[in-house]
Amino acid sequence: MEYLTSHNVMVMLLALGLMLGLARTLGELAQRFHQPAVLGELLAGVILGPTILGNFNPELGALLFPLHGPNLIALDAVATLSVVLFLMVAGIEVDLSTIWKQGRAGFKIGSSSMVIPFVMGFAAAMIIPRALGRHEGADNLVFALFFAIALSISALPVIAKTLMDLGLYRSDLGMVVVSAAVFSDLAGWIVFAIILSMMGSGPTHGNGIAMIVFNTLAFAAAVLTIGRLLIHKTIPFLQKYAKWPGSVISFAIVLTLLGAAFTEWIGIHAIFGAFIVGVAIGDSTNLREHTRVILENFISYIFAPLFFASIGLKVDFAEHFDAGLVILVLAIACGCKLAGGYLGARWSGMPKWDSMAIGVGLNSRGAMEIILGLLALNAGIIRTRLFVALVVMAIATSVISGPAMKYCLDKRKKTWRLREVLSRALFMQHLKSRTHREVIEEITQFASRRKGFDAQMADGAVWAREKALNTGIGNGVAIPHAHIKGLTEPLVVVGISKQGIDFDSPDGNPAHVIFLILMPSQNSIEQLEFVPEIARIFRDPGMMERVLLAKSRLELIKLMANGDNGSNGPSPS
Amino acid sequence: MEYLTSHNVMVMLLALGLMLGLARTLGELAQRFHQPAVLGELLAGVILGPTILGNFNPELGALLFPLHGPNLIALDAVATLSVVLFLMVAGIEVDLSTIWKQGRAGFKIGSSSMVIPFVMGFAAAMIIPRALGRHEGADNLVFALFFAIALSISALPVIAKTLMDLGLYRSDLGMVVVSAAVFSDLAGWIVFAIILSMMGSGPTHGNGIAMIVFNTLAFAAAVLTIGRLLIHKTIPFLQKYAKWPGSVISFAIVLTLLGAAFTEWIGIHAIFGAFIVGVAIGDSTNLREHTRVILENFISYIFAPLFFASIGLKVDFAEHFDAGLVILVLAIACGCKLAGGYLGARWSGMPKWDSMAIGVGLNSRGAMEIILGLLALNAGIIRTRLFVALVVMAIATSVISGPAMKYCLDKRKKTWRLREVLSRALFMQHLKSRTHREVIEEITQFASRRKGFDAQMADGAVWAREKALNTGIGNGVAIPHAHIKGLTEPLVVVGISKQGIDFDSPDGNPAHVIFLILMPSQNSIEQLEFVPEIARIFRDPGMMERVLLAKSRLELIKLMANGDNGSNGPSPS
Repeated sequence: MEYLTSHNVMVMLLALGLMLGLARTLGELAQRFHQPAVLGELLAGVILGPTILGNFNPELGALLFPLHGPNLIALDAVATLSVVLFLMVAGIEVDLSTIWKQGRAGFKIGSSSMVIPFVMGFAAAMIIPRALGRHEGADNLVFALFFAIALSISALPVIAKTLMDLGLYRSDLGMVVVSAAVFSDLAGWIVFAIILSMMGSGPTHGNGIAMIVFNTLAFAAAVLTIGRLLIHKTIPFLQKYAKWPGSVISFAIVLTLLGAAFTEWIGIHAIFGAFIVGVAIGDSTNLREHTRVILENFISYIFAPLFFASIGLKVDFAEHFDAGLVILVLAIACGCKLAGGYLGARWSGMPKWDSMAIGVGLNSRGAMEIILGLLALNAGIIRTRLFVALVVMAIATSVISGPAMKYCLDKRKKTWRLREVLSRALFMQHLKSRTHREVIEEITQFASRRKGFDAQMADGAVWAREKALNTGIGNGVAIPHAHIKGLTEPLVVVGISKQGIDFDSPDGNPAHVIFLILMPSQNSIEQLEFVPEIARIFRDPGMMERVLLAKSRLELIKLMANGDNGSNGPSPS
Repeated sequence: MEYLTSHNVMVMLLALGLMLGLARTLGELAQRFHQPAVLGELLAGVILGPTILGNFNPELGALLFPLHGPNLIALDAVATLSVVLFLMVAGIEVDLSTIWKQGRAGFKIGSSSMVIPFVMGFAAAMIIPRALGRHEGADNLVFALFFAIALSISALPVIAKTLMDLGLYRSDLGMVVVSAAVFSDLAGWIVFAIILSMMGSGPTHGNGIAMIVFNTLAFAAAVLTIGRLLIHKTIPFLQKYAKWPGSVISFAIVLTLLGAAFTEWIGIHAIFGAFIVGVAIGDSTNLREHTRVILENFISYIFAPLFFASIGLKVDFAEHFDAGLVILVLAIACGCKLAGGYLGARWSGMPKWDSMAIGVGLNSRGAMEIILGLLALNAGIIRTRLFVALVVMAIATSVISGPAMKYCLDKRKKTWRLREVLSRALFMQHLKSRTHREVIEEITQFASRRKGFDAQMADGAVWAREKALNTGIGNGVAIPHAHIKGLTEPLVVVGISKQGIDFDSPDGNPAHVIFLILMPSQNSIEQLEFVPEIARIFRDPGMMERVLLAKSRLELIKLMANGDNGSNGPSPS
């Protein structure tokens, strides 16, 4: 029996400890400078791998990260497990219902931002395959398909993170961007699964590509329909009859492991199965926020950093850095994705700067492109220098995304600033409701009495929006909203609840301050301009306390208006 | 480069998925029948391993769990990582301050329940080593030391779990049992580390046993003093400047991996380092309950089941089951541990049935003995049949523990039942305080005005007890208490807080109902008899709502007295 020796165990634990420690430290540092964490995590691998440690202290490098033997296998096992779990979390973040709810806009933008890069990438790869770093032995068609798909997929986790940082994640603009990204990701992964099978790296069981394509689509369809329903029905059962949240966490991970094993078995990569299972799990409204938080925290902060650091170990980034190729890939990638996103948004009737913001938002790649690149590298389709260029492109687009979106949004005509909103708002200082459903009704009834519109209709519209995606934005704030026919000007009601009401916020805290926003027309995404300001104000931990103790409407307005100190950048919290 | 092939990846994911799925399912089932989860988790390994699957379908067994090659190494790597992380969580549950606070009682019981089994086990192993299953090649002294220590160590996680199930975890009796277990565990692990080095399984770097003993003690001392302080200071820094709870989770795991690597390097087992680092982390009052919950949930429900299932894969339990040896080991183990615990408790002045309960509580082994046994098996010190006997003993003692403690506690003279307590209690239906510190003051001041004792002294005593270990027992209930000189009879004040006060409860919920208990003398553990009843009542999710809506003192008493429906078993929640 070949168990790990004591030396193997020591090296494995030391290597994992160093990787995780450095990856997380550099990841946190990157975030301090408003950069994606993945940047720092990759860098940790670059430092510990052949690029730096291997060059400066080859003995230590070979001791910690040997190129053969049990330790290499152990590390590969941990990295494989890590990427499978990470893809599950990426899948959980996908909200299928968002796609349906945002309907046409998401579809138009999603398909446009997918098709344009795909076509342009495919054409470029067919015309100049060698300049783009096709591996000698690789099939031209397979390479072109890979390159095309690598340019088309967005990085949903990075996009979601950027929108959260900007306080836009649950706004209408944020939902459009997310739904477009979900659409292009789902389509992209399915196409990629097919390409993977064409690469011939998996066991094909004597079946042709047609069989693999069929299996892939059948798996995705089965998991997203029957599987999704079964998961949705099983979670409440587990919550009732087994230890919660432990049972739901285990359930999610078991399904992910089995789904991943299955897709690996049918000849496509394990991560595809993990992603699809993640989508099915995340889509269940029975999955409670607390469970999600535990899964996301542990996996995003332990497994994901280990995986991204392990990428840096595989390649000497300095040796394979090709500045010309990097610039070429970056130019093609940004050009076609910006065009795709912008044109799609204009097509669905968005104003100019909103469309630009959407294009820039969808342009961020990040984790997904790197995983694709690694698979293609291992399958012998691309050269190492293209892999390095893809990694640099993925990071650069993610780094640009936040500031660029901010720039575009600042360019939009500003209609409503917070101070103005507050001065015109209605206030309810003592909400009586205890539940989410009740409080919407309480506030809309109050508003309808004051402003004379149909309370039932307004309540229905706000609740429908609420069911699509809860509007709790965390830090005790919720922003339910809807469009109401017949309103002549936007109406804001600020409700205060001492005991707090569960709005299923990302941070799990009940909402104490509820901004109900009713808007007159369809074309009013920019009416939510002040939402990021509200989010920023309540990030100050003392603010909520002061608001809850406020005696009068005037004091409330003063507090919140002063909290908005006019700074434009995200606060350094 | 020997990466895992696609087949290896598929097998690994499938094997892990099946192990985790079956382990968790059987673990949950075990808990449904009020048995420790580890019983079901081990059984999952027995089913998937050589005992059952390997016997009935050898081909499938060899495919899923091959006896050589990359998959064995991958599985061993995951199992090793799992046990390291599990020992960290076990360490986190140890509360060093409990040892000091319970002072003499804990020390007396701890040392007695450690020394008596150690001496008896040592003697038995020296007298009948072959009958007890010493491996032929093993040194007699090493075997005797191993057997002695295997009988002495308690299973803190199982004990903690049993006390929580009985609603006694934060009672004075619970604290005595926990502090005794902590004491014997710490001492036991240090002794075991020394034995491990004598086994000669680790790399000794040319140093003798003396050096290893010195290194072990120096490591433990350094981590528990300087390391503990540094961790305590670093956590708030991380919470302030980095993503929380992600940063604290990573920090804990990085330290654990490095500590484990270090102890493996100095020639003792990695799990010792992980345990000591866990103790140091868990001891910091800066470690928030939310972080602890994420670590414990993910590790207890993912890594621990994988590890315990992997044990079952190693051995054919049917083939090596020796009924005579099992009975012998069980008799020696129970006899000496019960004697040790009982005598220690009597020595520190406890009543008879309390002492019996403590002895029974400390008798549960569980996870720890199994890990020790596995190490000894791998090091060639014991025969497989002794390993099997130790596993059976560990499980049997854990299974007995809960019902036996309950039996002993029921035998004690019951002084105060809940109904009686409530009928004599003072009530404060509208607590004004918002913080933990304030509410203690508010309630003690109210009580002192009514009963005429020194408010400041009472407040100080309750707060001192509170600082030692928070008395939030979860489900919105807290039970602050203290001994007050000059009181002639026990005094209970029931305070209700609509908005809830953070008592750092295990479930993270604020306390809405606060039972302040002031007791006249030192010898009054049994005054808290009604605490389990309170815990049971509030497990009903609707109870808290009804209590918060109650209009009068009388309605409150009726609600709670009827909630205590006289059932004696733990509720099936």
